[in-house]
Amino acid sequence: MLLSKIIDLIKKGNSGFISSEIIEDININNPASLENATKNEITFLEENNRISNFISETNVSAIIIGKNELLIKEIKERKASVIIVENPRVAFAEVLNIFETKFKRKKGIDDSANIASTSVIGRDCYIGPNVFIGENTTIGSNNYIFPGVVISENVEIGDNNTLFANSVIYQNTKIKNNCIVNSNSVIGSEGFGFIPQNGKWEKMPQTGGVIINNEVEIGTNCCVDRPAVGFTEIGEGTKIDNLVQIGHGVTIGKNCAFAAQVGIAGGAVIGDRVILAGQVGVNNRVKVGNNVIASSKCGIHCDINDGEVISGFPAMQNKSWLRSSSVFKKLPELAKKLRQLDKK
Amino acid sequence: MLLSKIIDLIKKGNSGFISSEIIEDININNPASLENATKNEITFLEENNRISNFISETNVSAIIIGKNELLIKEIKERKASVIIVENPRVAFAEVLNIFETKFKRKKGIDDSANIASTSVIGRDCYIGPNVFIGENTTIGSNNYIFPGVVISENVEIGDNNTLFANSVIYQNTKIKNNCIVNSNSVIGSEGFGFIPQNGKWEKMPQTGGVIINNEVEIGTNCCVDRPAVGFTEIGEGTKIDNLVQIGHGVTIGKNCAFAAQVGIAGGAVIGDRVILAGQVGVNNRVKVGNNVIASSKCGIHCDINDGEVISGFPAMQNKSWLRSSSVFKKLPELAKKLRQLDKK
Amino acid sequence: MLLSKIIDLIKKGNSGFISSEIIEDININNPASLENATKNEITFLEENNRISNFISETNVSAIIIGKNELLIKEIKERKASVIIVENPRVAFAEVLNIFETKFKRKKGIDDSANIASTSVIGRDCYIGPNVFIGENTTIGSNNYIFPGVVISENVEIGDNNTLFANSVIYQNTKIKNNCIVNSNSVIGSEGFGFIPQNGKWEKMPQTGGVIINNEVEIGTNCCVDRPAVGFTEIGEGTKIDNLVQIGHGVTIGKNCAFAAQVGIAGGAVIGDRVILAGQVGVNNRVKVGNNVIASSKCGIHCDINDGEVISGFPAMQNKSWLRSSSVFKKLPELAKKLRQLDKK
Repeated sequence: MLLSKIIDLIKKGNSGFISSEIIEDININNPASLENATKNEITFLEENNRISNFISETNVSAIIIGKNELLIKEIKERKASVIIVENPRVAFAEVLNIFETKFKRKKGIDDSANIASTSVIGRDCYIGPNVFIGENTTIGSNNYIFPGVVISENVEIGDNNTLFANSVIYQNTKIKNNCIVNSNSVIGSEGFGFIPQNGKWEKMPQTGGVIINNEVEIGTNCCVDRPAVGFTEIGEGTKIDNLVQIGHGVTIGKNCAFAAQVGIAGGAVIGDRVILAGQVGVNNRVKVGNNVIASSKCGIHCDINDGEVISGFPAMQNKSWLRSSSVFKKLPELAKKLRQLDKK
Repeated sequence: MLLSKIIDLIKKGNSGFISSEIIEDININNPASLENATKNEITFLEENNRISNFISETNVSAIIIGKNELLIKEIKERKASVIIVENPRVAFAEVLNIFETKFKRKKGIDDSANIASTSVIGRDCYIGPNVFIGENTTIGSNNYIFPGVVISENVEIGDNNTLFANSVIYQNTKIKNNCIVNSNSVIGSEGFGFIPQNGKWEKMPQTGGVIINNEVEIGTNCCVDRPAVGFTEIGEGTKIDNLVQIGHGVTIGKNCAFAAQVGIAGGAVIGDRVILAGQVGVNNRVKVGNNVIASSKCGIHCDINDGEVISGFPAMQNKSWLRSSSVFKKLPELAKKLRQLDKK
Repeated sequence: MLLSKIIDLIKKGNSGFISSEIIEDININNPASLENATKNEITFLEENNRISNFISETNVSAIIIGKNELLIKEIKERKASVIIVENPRVAFAEVLNIFETKFKRKKGIDDSANIASTSVIGRDCYIGPNVFIGENTTIGSNNYIFPGVVISENVEIGDNNTLFANSVIYQNTKIKNNCIVNSNSVIGSEGFGFIPQNGKWEKMPQTGGVIINNEVEIGTNCCVDRPAVGFTEIGEGTKIDNLVQIGHGVTIGKNCAFAAQVGIAGGAVIGDRVILAGQVGVNNRVKVGNNVIASSKCGIHCDINDGEVISGFPAMQNKSWLRSSSVFKKLPELAKKLRQLDKK
């Protein structure tokens, strides 16, 4: 696609177009990262990105960038075209959308799919090979259900969802609209509820269900359990990375983002717009307020107020943790000094 | 079901029935949690539960509770019927059992299942669509093998087990009786055994197997590896949550409970009735005694004696860890004070 | 197999055979670990192994061991044959190779496999039941693709690879030769790339792919994501255990070994021969040098130089971490002493 055409599309987009300067209106074949981009490719650069030093040696044809006069000057010296926008990442996402090869499967139900007679499938769905759909399940319209997906009894799936290959949806799960469940994730399995009795574990029946609201995305190999009663619920717009555990009876707000290997124990309540970095753990029944940010490996043992930025294990304010951690490294010398003072 | 009938069943159960007072013998439609329960529903409440303040505004029809005069009085003021037992959670589990919708699949072998001619399937099994069963495998009676399960060669499965959809059982695995393996878990895959040679990794063949004893439950997306020689073994009655790693050659005792994302490295030996909270890690070949409790994110690097309660990384006694952690937060001021004293 | 024959094979192997002394040239039926080995079995023992005390009571027929006069004398006293080599573990691996039962599936494409007409399958492959292969995918020769594997569009798979049951390969993935992907692992799924906009998360399209180089092994339930542009790449000979997360755009060098539950966030660059123990986390875009060793649960927040041995969270030099950790346990008494000194 001609560079000028790409710029026209960016102008119509949401990145806040400011201006552009085309050195040569050549064909753009590919979007690429600045380190690897060459001629006939387009890339982007954000403020303070550590790869900005690659500008000095790039042969890329066009760079999308914010209003940074210094970098713009450097780019022009490399004879690359420049597209200046408020939010370069958004503009680049729009460019990626143009170039993305979308492998949309043909609508229709594969002959090898096994669908219970009491279940209902809406129009314009792709139901791939070896899909299983149990009794009393309702599937809306325009869903993509990839090969090997297993959906149990009494499940409700709305419209425009994608369930990738070999994911499993247990009984009593409701998935609303525009959701994505990636491969090998399991939604609605039995919560880990046992009662200690005479040195053994008796099962607490898990009769509840799971609700996945609109625009939720769930990564690969995730687990979302159903509770004894009521629902485990994930709020609209929340995005979940791979290998994440959502325990039984957890409630998650809207527009959260959880990185890989996060674990949320049973009954925890997470607010809106909460960001949990990789390998964060949240204890049973803990309440995490809105807009909380927890850095990687943080262990959240008790309730957290709205807007806190937390780190460490047990979790504390990020600033405090950074200070304590830097002293931790010097503990042996502190201990030594203390012994010396004590002797005096 | 009429409330009086439910109470009759609780009397015959194991919760230690004490007494009951029926305000109105109405139909109970649903068990629910105290926060959400309304008319025609039943709930339970344990001592010191933080949701007990919901009593003051509930419209629930019946509450199962222990012998707490204050709470019982409050419940009666709300005009709810009260059922007093020694163990309210056990009574509620019995109530859930009454109301649970059990989706039992029809016995029989689906036409699309692929079963090797040298394998034997016992009576009264459900073998779902697209199940694969390899050579020389024996499946006992009354097993539920859900769609997409793959069982390799030389596997022995006893009676009354449930293998949920898309779980995978590799060669040389023995699953005894009354076990549950949830979706997408993998039992008996090759242990991570490599020998460093000339800067590369040579494979140590993993010729052993896995033994899963009676009444074991394994969550979703778990991994239990087989060792070079001998067996990885999980003891009777042990319950394992989601995303748990059990390394090759690990031995786990009876009636343990491991929360989500626990990882146990190769050759570790875990005693009976051990409780590991979420994201706990156990190092290679470490021995953990009976009745040990490890709190979440604990990293167990060396042997632990019977009955210890441990926390932190590296693991230490929980009480000691709590004290050290509370000082950790004050490290910057301690360091400052030490500098001041030093200057004097 | 006769013990003398096994010794002949060890002589031809790579363990550095030194000498042997056969007490009785009996049949060896089984390799076993020293704790469990009995008559007609063979085992091995490495220097400083804590199980060496089992020698005093073993009835094993033959032990492979290094040049340790004391242990050799002990073994002879137990009337066990002894095989002395430079590297006992390598010799034992060779013995295991002799005894391993290899369940090789019959070559050929199962009738129930679903293969797009535009895809090409090389010769001598096993394509198991219910395998799905999408459009424009190329599979080389001598591959084992187990039941339930799903391979999307535009995938390239070389020769001599094994994809175990129910693993999933998304679009734009290249797997070279001699690789193993274990069950339920997912390669090439969409990277976790979102842009915050007006309190919501807009998707950054992930148009890139994944490259898995020769001799790579990936455990069960792992995730390897594809990036927005370019490739996530795993270098030749790298071995990855179970439940590992490899984020989008990560580059991993050659001959690394990552233990279970490791998580590597997007854009990180890992050198050659890096060893990451269980539950280690690596932050976004961090660079880890060659030959780095990180102990279990280590949290790597910033770049690490070649050859460092690191521990803790945030990561520091292992020696320093050990010293600081030992002081951490004594923090309450240090704080007390400091208060006392302050009062004087």
